[in-house]
Formats: sequence, C-alpha cells, structure tokens
Amino acid sequence: MSPSAAQIFRLGEIVARLGGDLVGDAAVTVSRVATLENATADAVAFLANEKYLSQLKKTRAGAVIVGESLRGSLKTAHIVAANPYAYFAHVSALFNPPPKPPRGNHPSAILHPGAQIAPSVHIGPLAVIEDGVVIGEGCTIGAGAYIGADVRMGTDCLIYQNATLYDRCVIGSRVTVHSGAVIGADGFGIAMDEGRWIKVPQVGRVRIGDDVEIGANTTIDRGAVDDTIIENGVKLDNQIQVAHNVRIGAHTAIAACVGIAGSSRIGSYCRIGGASGIAGHLVIADHVEISAHTLVTKSISKSGTYTGAYPFESNRDWRRNAASLRQLGDLVDRVRALERSLKKTKKGES
Amino acid sequence: MSPSAAQIFRLGEIVARLGGDLVGDAAVTVSRVATLENATADAVAFLANEKYLSQLKKTRAGAVIVGESLRGSLKTAHIVAANPYAYFAHVSALFNPPPKPPRGNHPSAILHPGAQIAPSVHIGPLAVIEDGVVIGEGCTIGAGAYIGADVRMGTDCLIYQNATLYDRCVIGSRVTVHSGAVIGADGFGIAMDEGRWIKVPQVGRVRIGDDVEIGANTTIDRGAVDDTIIENGVKLDNQIQVAHNVRIGAHTAIAACVGIAGSSRIGSYCRIGGASGIAGHLVIADHVEISAHTLVTKSISKSGTYTGAYPFESNRDWRRNAASLRQLGDLVDRVRALERSLKKTKKGES
Amino acid sequence: MSPSAAQIFRLGEIVARLGGDLVGDAAVTVSRVATLENATADAVAFLANEKYLSQLKKTRAGAVIVGESLRGSLKTAHIVAANPYAYFAHVSALFNPPPKPPRGNHPSAILHPGAQIAPSVHIGPLAVIEDGVVIGEGCTIGAGAYIGADVRMGTDCLIYQNATLYDRCVIGSRVTVHSGAVIGADGFGIAMDEGRWIKVPQVGRVRIGDDVEIGANTTIDRGAVDDTIIENGVKLDNQIQVAHNVRIGAHTAIAACVGIAGSSRIGSYCRIGGASGIAGHLVIADHVEISAHTLVTKSISKSGTYTGAYPFESNRDWRRNAASLRQLGDLVDRVRALERSLKKTKKGES
Repeated sequence: MSPSAAQIFRLGEIVARLGGDLVGDAAVTVSRVATLENATADAVAFLANEKYLSQLKKTRAGAVIVGESLRGSLKTAHIVAANPYAYFAHVSALFNPPPKPPRGNHPSAILHPGAQIAPSVHIGPLAVIEDGVVIGEGCTIGAGAYIGADVRMGTDCLIYQNATLYDRCVIGSRVTVHSGAVIGADGFGIAMDEGRWIKVPQVGRVRIGDDVEIGANTTIDRGAVDDTIIENGVKLDNQIQVAHNVRIGAHTAIAACVGIAGSSRIGSYCRIGGASGIAGHLVIADHVEISAHTLVTKSISKSGTYTGAYPFESNRDWRRNAASLRQLGDLVDRVRALERSLKKTKKGES
Repeated sequence: MSPSAAQIFRLGEIVARLGGDLVGDAAVTVSRVATLENATADAVAFLANEKYLSQLKKTRAGAVIVGESLRGSLKTAHIVAANPYAYFAHVSALFNPPPKPPRGNHPSAILHPGAQIAPSVHIGPLAVIEDGVVIGEGCTIGAGAYIGADVRMGTDCLIYQNATLYDRCVIGSRVTVHSGAVIGADGFGIAMDEGRWIKVPQVGRVRIGDDVEIGANTTIDRGAVDDTIIENGVKLDNQIQVAHNVRIGAHTAIAACVGIAGSSRIGSYCRIGGASGIAGHLVIADHVEISAHTLVTKSISKSGTYTGAYPFESNRDWRRNAASLRQLGDLVDRVRALERSLKKTKKGES
Repeated sequence: MSPSAAQIFRLGEIVARLGGDLVGDAAVTVSRVATLENATADAVAFLANEKYLSQLKKTRAGAVIVGESLRGSLKTAHIVAANPYAYFAHVSALFNPPPKPPRGNHPSAILHPGAQIAPSVHIGPLAVIEDGVVIGEGCTIGAGAYIGADVRMGTDCLIYQNATLYDRCVIGSRVTVHSGAVIGADGFGIAMDEGRWIKVPQVGRVRIGDDVEIGANTTIDRGAVDDTIIENGVKLDNQIQVAHNVRIGAHTAIAACVGIAGSSRIGSYCRIGGASGIAGHLVIADHVEISAHTLVTKSISKSGTYTGAYPFESNRDWRRNAASLRQLGDLVDRVRALERSLKKTKKGES
C-alpha cells in the first residue's frame, strides 16, 4: 500500500474538476499538496488554521486554497472555495489516489474453504479468514488481520494489518479499519454472584454501516444480547472504546481516547472531543458537541456544546484553588450566612 | 469460536436447574435470552436497569426474570430471583454454552519443540508458541497470538486472536485474554543520567491468578524487579493500563480505559469506574469504589465511594464557572475578610 | 528473548566499573538486583522511594545503593552514588544484559525480495517485511510484526511481537517498539462536505529519532502533509496517542494513556503525567512538567509544573462541592455584591 507515482495538474484543470474560482494563471502546474510553511512552487497549500495566517504571505506555494474573504488579496495564485478545507481534501485526493493493492491473495494467507471471497479481493500475507466469512468486491485485508467466522463485509473495505474482527460482525461498504483495532470482543458483562463475578455471555454482534473509519487500536465490543451499532459515515479516531450495545448515530465524529459506556445512544452529527467519556445508558441528541476531557453523566436532549474539563494552571495556583474546591460547599454556606447577617445589620438588627 | 446450535428449555426445567420461583406456566419453552424491548415469545428477558421499567409491561417475552418486589405483578410468566442479573447470566449461559474449538493444532501454527502443550489444547492458525512454554489441558490459543518463552498457563484458558504474552508470564486457570491485549511488556522504568534517559531493565514477570478476564487492547506491564500481580477473579475491561509492580486484589472489577501507575496496590472487591487513574505507590483498601474519570492521588484506607470528576455543563456555563475556579483561593480570602469586617461592623468598630 | 544466565560480581568490581563509593566489604559477591523488601544476601537493592525508608533497616540485601545523605549510616554494605536510581539502572544492566536473539530469520517470516535486510538482523516467525524496507545491522523483528513498504530502520532496533509499522516510516537506531504499537496509521483528517465527512489523505510520514522507546499499544499517526516527528531519546509509555504532525522534543518522557492532538509541538526534556492531554496546535516549552490527568488547552512558554486534575474526595463531599461548582460564577457575583454592600454600610449608606 505504498503511494502511487506523482500526478501533475494545471490549476485550470483543478477548478474545472472541483469547482471554485481561480485567481491567477491557469497554466501553472502543481503536483502535490503542502503546508504553507514547507510548500514549493510545485505545491498547492491552504490555510488550515487562523494561527498560520502570517505564513500565508511568506509561502512559496504555486497556489493556495482560501475562503472568500481573502479573494484577490494575495500575490500567489489562489483558488477561492466556499469550504477551503474540504476543497483541499479533494485536491489532495487528486494527487494521492489510494494505492492499488496487488491482485489476488498472498499464498501464506489462511483462507477457510467455507469463506466466500469475491474475485477482486486482495488478502495479504498471513491474514486469517475463518469459515462462513463473506467478503465483497474490492476489499483489501492486510497482513496478519483476523476475520472471524461468519463475518460479513460489503465492498471496497480496507482492513489494515493486524486488525481483529471477532465472529459474526457485520461490516458495510467502504469501511476502513486501522491496525490493532478490535471489533466484536466481549462486552464487559459480569454479575456478582455469591462473592465472585460470573460472566454474562455476550451474544450480540457489532454492526457497522457504510463509509465508517475506525482508528488504530480502537475497540468496539459486541452486544450483550442485542447488537452494538455504528451507523453510516461515523468516523472514529484511535484508541476509542465503544462498549456493548452502544449506538452511534450517522456522521458522528469522535476524537481519540474517548470511552463510551454500555447501552448509550449517541445522536447523528455529534462531535466528541478527545479523551471524553459518556456514562452508560444515556441518550445524546443529534448535533451535540462534547469538549475534550469531559465526562457526560446525564442524557443531553438539546444540541449545543457541553464541557467539563478542569482548567489547568501552574501547579502552585492549582494547589491553592483545588484545596479551596474541597471547601466549596462550606464556602457557599458562609456566603449565605454573610448575606443574612448583613441584611439584618442593615435593618438595625444584630 | 462461533455460537452453537440453539438449546430449548421449558421454564420448569430452568428453575429446576437454577433455582428461583416460577410464577406462570412451567411448560412454556424458551430458546434464547433477549432484551425486554426486542424479546419474542421464545425468549427470556430481564429488567437490566430501572430506566427500562416501562418496557416491562410491553414486553412480548415468553418469560421475564425479576426481583422479589415484582412477584405476581406481571401478566408475563416470570421467575423471581434474589439476584436477577446473576440469574440472567446463568440462563444465558444455559442457552449459549461456550463454543467448542476444533481439536488439535492448526498446521500453520509455529510450535517450538521445547514447548509442552497438553493434548486437549487447540492452537489456531499462525499462532506462535516459544520455547519452554507450558500450556495446560483445555486451553485455546487464537490465530496470530504470541506466547513468549517460558510462559506457564493453567487449564481451560482462552487466549484470543492477536493477543501477545511476553516471556515468563504466569497465567492461572480459566483465564481469558482478549485480542490485542499485551501482557508482560516492559514497565516504564527510566532514570535520567547526564542529560539522557537510561533504561532500568524490567526483569520481573506478570503473574495472573485463576478466573481472570482481560479485555481487548489492555496492557499489563511486567515488574521492574519483583512481579506485577493480578489476583484470582479480577475482571479487567478493554484498554486498561496496569503499570509495573501493581498488585490488584481478588475479585476487583475495573472498567475500560483505567490507568494504574507503578507499584500501587488495589484491594479486593474494588470497583473502578471508566477512565479513572490511580497514581503510583498507593494502597487502596478492599471494597473501595472509584467513580469514573477520577484521579486517586492518595492512599485510601476506608471502603466507600470516592469521586473526582468535573461536573459537565453547557460550554457557556462552564466558561464562567471554570474562570471563577481559577480565582477560588482568592474568593475564600475575600469571604474571610468579609466575615471579619462584618463582625467588626456589628461590634461598632469600622 | 528470554533472560541470560546469572552474572556474578564482587562489590569491588561494580564500583570499579560504574564509579560510586563502596562502604563495606569489597569481596562480597552479588548476582542480581532486588527490592529492599525481597532482597537476599546475593542481591543489590536500592531506596526507590522515600516511602520505603523503613524497609532499609530491615533489608537482608548483600548491598544497597544510596545517596550521599545515608553514607555510613547502615550496617549493610552500601554504594554511595550521586544518582542512586541511575546507578541502580546500570547495576541491573550488568546483571541483566539484553538477551541475544537467535541468528538469522525464521523460515516462516515473509520477506519481500525487494527488502534490504542487514546480515546480523533476526526476524522472528511470521513477521512480514514488505518491498523497499531497509533494516540496519543488529535489529530484531519479533514474531507477527508488520514492517510496511519502504520503512527505513537504523541499527540495533528491537521491534516486539505483533507491532505494526505502516509504510514509509523512518526509524532511527536503538529504537524499541513494544507489542501492539501502531506507527504510521492515518491521522484523523476529515472535512465536512455537504453533510458527510470526506477523508483528507494522510500523506506525511512518521520520523522517529535514535534511542526512542515506544510502549505497548501506543499509536503514532503519520502526518497529514508534513511528517510527525519524535526526536532523539524520547520515551513513550503504553497506550499513548500521538496525532498527526505532532513534534515531540528530544528526551521528553510521557507516561501512559496520554493523548496529544494534531500539530502540537512539545519541547525537549518535558515530563507528561499519565492520562493527560495536549490540545491541538499548541507549543509547549522545554522542561515543562504536566501533572497526571491534566488537559492543556493553551500553549505554555515557561518551564514549570502545570496541573489541572479535579481533587478527589468521598462521593458525599464531592456531590456537595461539585454542585456548588456549578454555581461558582454566581457565588463570585454574590461575594462582590456583599463587598459593595458592606462598604456602603460602613460609610453609613444603606
């Protein structure tokens, strides 16, 4: 899966394909994307973040992708786009088409005769495909990946090296699973019984929709009884933990290291910041944004942004403020007492 | 490891095997467990959580497992159990006996001739068993799993696909290790020496007791000098990090994404909520419960529940309150000054 | 990679090799390191932590490594060292030299003919080495590890079992990568485009310097356009997430479960505590220490210690204080009102 040979495009070709307005010479050729800081004349760059505005004037890029507000304000050729970041994504995809894996299956892969593998599939070295698996056209299974019994997978999926799919998972089309991800391990279902934990068999599955991406070392547990469900277009970063019977709504994006406890339902188009947590059995509405390092302990019925991170400061200040936090309930009482006492004083009582 | 064919039981048989009181027709047959919401007449359901009480009346389940307080209050046949969740676990285990792996070892597995593997063991495709390993009767080693040199494992263990056990780990009986878990990697032992970090060799082992379950992508580091120890009956969810020389007491259950720093000792029967942390060199008593997202920075000598999560709120409210938190020490001083000043005022001083 | 046979040293030999002052009999022989608690006469121990001072008097160790302040105060033979922990690391390395892997490559490894593998390299069973890979002298690649196309690796690296390196990563010399680590997976680059997420191709690489150690199940994403960079001597514990285009300065040490968001630059000689987070696009100065469970949301330009963890307490106290925290902005207003009102009262107004 190494990158392909360089593609060369004239700026005129790019806007003809992707839209946007070109301000500058349509004949200029470019062959790669670059950051403003490191671009050379053969590269298209874009303004990723307001913090880098000062780099825009100094860039040596052949062309820059900008929003409407910067139209005509640059000496560098520029493409004005309604959504510069999405435009950049399309340009980068032009220059960097996904690599074509070799055709056929590596002879060292272990393919169970009971698996149904479409002809255009590529299975890498030492991958294991168990009995009853169905893999659709155009899928690529990386080296060392494990596809458990009766897994069903749509078309054009990309399962990276050393990923693990337990038995009976259902995967849509155009799904990417990065290395080290584990889909379908047992949920954490234990019941205390006479002084020891007994296991609740985890007999549900994981069902994943289309166009889902799952980051490296992310874990999605199978349902205890019903299924764990990841809807279409969900994007999961690395090292996320999705517990049994969670449902994540379509087009929700979750940053790295988030944990979602059992049976919670996340809406569509939510965005969840890194290392946040969602407690179990909650319902989160559509279009909710959760800030990083926030623990959500109650259901959220209204879209909006929710936060619960402790504000960091110098350790010296923190020591003082955090110690006071342990007395905060008392402080509230003292303020209430002061208010009463002052009121009495003003009335002439004492 | 796919599920077995359906088992069918009469309700009368279930209570004969498992105890509990049946209210309803003993001849009704059921063949699976289900949630209240999705149950049909062939299924046994149970009330998992008070939040789902309203579903109890509408369920189409053939039978429901409930606590004493609901005895006789349902039209649906029901089994009254002292501990409905544990009862449900037993019923689910009746319907879902663990799958029987194929006998024998897959020819593609790499078995060192110096390994001692009991006859009833099953080793999956492309697993690697190093020199000096001892594996007891009834164990299953999944595809692609790695069992390092001199690992000793009791009976009836289940090591899932792509799990990694470093050399010399000691594993009890009936231990389950899920995919991606890494047992016995080096602890984080480094010493600053003339401007660079030097490594402290990690020469201890990991010793795991009986009836332990270890979740997907969980990591348990080997000891620096002495061993890291996981006692009998401990249950670890996914993506937990256990540092070198930690000791976790028997029957403690830890939810996903928890980190335990070096040399801390956790008592027995503790419950630790998701994404919490235990700082290093602490001692936590038995029967301690730690809430989710809590950092424990001091030893805990009394059983009870301990919490330290920031309460989440709308981002607007959080901004205001968090900014005030940075002034909390000053606020305490201001309240103290007010108290003094008001006291003087009342005394007629000013 | 099992441990070697025991080495035996006289105390006199140890100080001759490693420096330090011996107080006691130079002829005493020792053959291992041990903790104070579990040491026997054949072992060297050291005082790891002030908490264990009471164990120093009771230890049965053959010798103890201590700092200057304890010189002559012990009956046990002791070596006085300026930096006892570093000294201990050197002593432990004497007793525990790194194991020599077998020479040559296991016949089951899948080595692409286009890979350049130095003669002294050892490649374990079922490892996969892709086209264009360059591996320098003295490297060891563990069983089941995956080395993607065009990866370049210096000398004397140790890649543990089931680690995954995506294509084009650049690895220095004397780099250790533990099991389950994933280096070079795609960064989380997505752009919202007409109601769905589109992928921003991640075409940068991961570049890792010399003498870096990467813990089990840690993930380091490749850059979106430019590279993600880990400088010389960086030490990363387990389950750390490093996002695309992060740069970590030389000799920085990061504890387990930390997440660093995209494009942030961490200085040299920083120490970051467990489960902390660094938001994206920040710059952290050299010699900054971040406490555990802290979220850094702004750049830090001055060395020092920074903290942002919620102080834990009994759940009862937490409930009261955390509820008050939600009213903290209001409380500040009430205190301000009290201050004004009291001032007026003192002036005789009301």
